[in-house]
Amino acid sequence: MTTQLNELNAYKCFDGWCRFFEHDATSTKSKMRFSVYLPPQHEGWQVPVLYWLSGLTCTEENFMIKAGAQRFAAEHGVMLVVPDTSPRGEGVHDEPERYDIGSGAGFYVNATRDPWAPNYRMYDYVVQELPAIIHEHFHALPNASGIFGHSMGGHGALMISLRNPGMFRSVSAFSPISAPSQVPWGQDAFREYLGNDEEAWAQYDTVSLLKKAEKPLPMLIDQGLSDEFLKNLLRVDLLEKVCKERGHQLTLNLHPRYGHSYYFVATFIGEHIAYHAERLRS
Amino acid sequence: MTTQLNELNAYKCFDGWCRFFEHDATSTKSKMRFSVYLPPQHEGWQVPVLYWLSGLTCTEENFMIKAGAQRFAAEHGVMLVVPDTSPRGEGVHDEPERYDIGSGAGFYVNATRDPWAPNYRMYDYVVQELPAIIHEHFHALPNASGIFGHSMGGHGALMISLRNPGMFRSVSAFSPISAPSQVPWGQDAFREYLGNDEEAWAQYDTVSLLKKAEKPLPMLIDQGLSDEFLKNLLRVDLLEKVCKERGHQLTLNLHPRYGHSYYFVATFIGEHIAYHAERLRS
Repeated sequence: MTTQLNELNAYKCFDGWCRFFEHDATSTKSKMRFSVYLPPQHEGWQVPVLYWLSGLTCTEENFMIKAGAQRFAAEHGVMLVVPDTSPRGEGVHDEPERYDIGSGAGFYVNATRDPWAPNYRMYDYVVQELPAIIHEHFHALPNASGIFGHSMGGHGALMISLRNPGMFRSVSAFSPISAPSQVPWGQDAFREYLGNDEEAWAQYDTVSLLKKAEKPLPMLIDQGLSDEFLKNLLRVDLLEKVCKERGHQLTLNLHPRYGHSYYFVATFIGEHIAYHAERLRS
Repeated sequence: MTTQLNELNAYKCFDGWCRFFEHDATSTKSKMRFSVYLPPQHEGWQVPVLYWLSGLTCTEENFMIKAGAQRFAAEHGVMLVVPDTSPRGEGVHDEPERYDIGSGAGFYVNATRDPWAPNYRMYDYVVQELPAIIHEHFHALPNASGIFGHSMGGHGALMISLRNPGMFRSVSAFSPISAPSQVPWGQDAFREYLGNDEEAWAQYDTVSLLKKAEKPLPMLIDQGLSDEFLKNLLRVDLLEKVCKERGHQLTLNLHPRYGHSYYFVATFIGEHIAYHAERLRS
């Protein structure tokens, strides 16, 4: 089956192309948007694919505009793929007065509770539909994908890599929501999307998944210590604790005075892309 | 006289600080905003200052968010200073339905025609008021300033450096509006701000100024060849022509397939900052 992609914009950038697409998505029964950065090496060669999952309120644009990632994707010959953070548009439920639920806040789950259940299936979109589209439409090297993200997208990247062993060769995160089941903000979102079944929550909770994981991918995480969300939302300390207890490989870089914004992400994006590229190209 | 600065935001970034300020401006009789990037070397040392002038619709934020400049400012130990592109706010005239005049479109002139004349004095703000503030509040190395910009801001950077010999040690531009007096869009803006006096226009027109300039600074200009504004607004060809005729030093890099956006600016920002740093640190 061929998915029709509608190209919205294309920008030459670091000798490659930054391109924006919209398409009818099966998993979310909605339009979905994503962006790709095709490095210059993509002209004629298959390249590794690195998926970026964005945080609350973001679209497929923020990372491409703010992170300065293209410079390093071009240098290392890696394709970047950046989905929107939720379905949007006609027929898709939203609660416009909230930024932490609905549009821009899909939390990368398959919602089971109405009114979200019909469209909010970002887990399926990211795990199945989007990779199939990427391999169909671009020169993507097989078995050479990595995943990373920021905040809610850091949660998405870690959680998805843990639930799909073998799908990715590398994973990293900036300021990830690490234990959403254990913080009020995450509990609110999970209750909206998944109801009160805490077993269901655990399937989307990185710390819960790490408790049971056998040989998960090593994780690289960068975290700002002046991040205003660190104590009440992100709880990277709980992730560090479970990794120590279970002997999971974690490289946790803590940065005094850095916050939660893309000014922080941009500062260390080069190191993350180099980390992935080393594992994807080996 | 001490100017009170109200700090709006501060972000740790590439081991330095990206800071946003608002203050009461004398030249524009309004609030004005600007941003600075203080490289890590600014802790205890005087550093060169590089002014960035932005294009139409931009504020003091766009460049800091989109250009990826901080990485190179940190590497070279150069301070970045980015003013808003016009006065804004209470009592400042605007025509909200237009993006090419009024708010976000000051064109770096001192307007002489009402209703713009009382506030739209961006030339004075950039040439006099802002540098005084920078040297008062930050560790700015004396006689070590450069200026660059994009589109309308490229016009501003070139024009201001030409009118103020000795003020800057380096100048460069991305996709500059090069001969505003000779294109309808620029003529419209100049007519609004300056009336019909074409002698007044010539004082703000890079190509006109280059016709009379004695030994202007060498210019570095990067231009995308798929830039949708190249033929009808920017007219970099006229700038190239006058430089050839008059023997002025111009390095003009033309880039096939690149457009007008910050994806283009970000691609070559490292080379521009290195160019300035070499001249500012020598």
